[in-house]
Amino acid sequence: MGNIISGTPIAQAIKEEVKKEVTALRAKGKIPGLATILVGDDPASQTYVASKIKACAEMGIESFHHKLPGRTTEQELGALIEKLNNDKKVTGILLQIPLPKHLDADRLIEKISPDKDVDGLTPASIGRFVSAKSWDEIVKNKLLLPCTPSGIIEIMKKSNLEIAGKNAVVIGRSNLVGKPIAMLLLANNATVTVAHSKTKNLEQLCSAADILVAAIGKPNFVTAAFVKKGAVVIDVGINRTEKGLVGDVDFESAKTVAGHITPVPGGVGKMTIAMLMKNTVLATLK
Amino acid sequence: MGNIISGTPIAQAIKEEVKKEVTALRAKGKIPGLATILVGDDPASQTYVASKIKACAEMGIESFHHKLPGRTTEQELGALIEKLNNDKKVTGILLQIPLPKHLDADRLIEKISPDKDVDGLTPASIGRFVSAKSWDEIVKNKLLLPCTPSGIIEIMKKSNLEIAGKNAVVIGRSNLVGKPIAMLLLANNATVTVAHSKTKNLEQLCSAADILVAAIGKPNFVTAAFVKKGAVVIDVGINRTEKGLVGDVDFESAKTVAGHITPVPGGVGKMTIAMLMKNTVLATLK
Repeated sequence: MGNIISGTPIAQAIKEEVKKEVTALRAKGKIPGLATILVGDDPASQTYVASKIKACAEMGIESFHHKLPGRTTEQELGALIEKLNNDKKVTGILLQIPLPKHLDADRLIEKISPDKDVDGLTPASIGRFVSAKSWDEIVKNKLLLPCTPSGIIEIMKKSNLEIAGKNAVVIGRSNLVGKPIAMLLLANNATVTVAHSKTKNLEQLCSAADILVAAIGKPNFVTAAFVKKGAVVIDVGINRTEKGLVGDVDFESAKTVAGHITPVPGGVGKMTIAMLMKNTVLATLK
Repeated sequence: MGNIISGTPIAQAIKEEVKKEVTALRAKGKIPGLATILVGDDPASQTYVASKIKACAEMGIESFHHKLPGRTTEQELGALIEKLNNDKKVTGILLQIPLPKHLDADRLIEKISPDKDVDGLTPASIGRFVSAKSWDEIVKNKLLLPCTPSGIIEIMKKSNLEIAGKNAVVIGRSNLVGKPIAMLLLANNATVTVAHSKTKNLEQLCSAADILVAAIGKPNFVTAAFVKKGAVVIDVGINRTEKGLVGDVDFESAKTVAGHITPVPGGVGKMTIAMLMKNTVLATLK
């Protein structure tokens, strides 16, 4: 039976590192500051932003919240982003998505300076880490990585799970998870396969993986039959069902075969805010 | 025995399309213009740039050549790029690499406006096509793709070779070829694996591929044993040996098993300049 990797203590360890970094930065007169932008009244988004602001306070990071009405125009939001790009007190900018439908999220995200892009979502940020020749280069250049994929790498490294030379299969090719985690596993010298809805023989493909990342948004999709004995199984799914929050992995089934497995909730999801805090510090160090 | 795919007629067909587009653009008063920048006296680079300028003339594209001395500073070159970014006559900018060692190529490439980046090398250009959700989106948004990878997709499409649902293996993870071709095959709905020097059981992995792309820079590395019967084999290698120019694929051996195979020379290499011309037109349409 597989070892269950809890995200909670790993996220806590990251936050402790961040706190120390912030203290050191403040001693040098450098204060990390996160600007959060929320457009409209979506309750889930309000909750997410509130928990990010709370985390900033815990870390000693300044936060600057901008709450805009749902009718905000693209020009107005663009002007705010431009202002924050040029504001020295703001070292990181977070534009909470989804945006109201009349706003072009891709075009607005692209306006965020890649040096302040703590969500790692701008094309320039993506291009920078995709082009990096190794994980060492990513770390050395303090690249801002998208939070969920970088949280997965952190979980694996802090759990001493080998990535180099392993056969990794990522199910799902979203911009938020599938594609970036594939590129980060590659930078860590895994042989990486990206599978998706058009993939044939998915079960067979997955069952050869030493590292299996499920990011497809289908509750309990990955059963024991998909899992190689002893494999590392990372569940990125967050599916709200009648039985509560469940992942893309059928945990009870898969854990009988996996060597290591992350639960939902309490796994990868715990890492996101910690990695956002880490990015805000990295952006201050630039 | 495999069908040999010659790049020559496919490149020619692209160039004919480009010529027609240029004529149509000129009729509307829009003139595509490519600025080429060559720093120093590297003979190979001089030859490459000369052939690009010649192709422009054949297509009816204006060209603006900037030849700078090898001692040019990063500041001077940066200022030139900035000037060209703001020059309306210049719709595409090509900075010939490699640059002299005292110049930071990555930093200078990043200065090129992604809207004029006809080599598809800036982080923002890479991020744009990596983030695209489908090939249709790439085409619709007229994204500027790096020339060799987009030439490979063009070869496959013009040869009516199916990509969707196929198992593709890319050997090599360079920024110029391996990583971008993997992302473009993924955008075309292949299941994509990126293999490299740290990959275990490479021969076995490759021999399950419906599409095998070799981009590793090792002469004649891929033999028949790596090739699934009937597979499409794309050879991106350009290795200068005592016996002349050879690819990464052992052509005589691999063609006995492959269904379709590109030769070296005369395959993928023929596409590069045609795709550069196509990008210069796309950049004018933006």
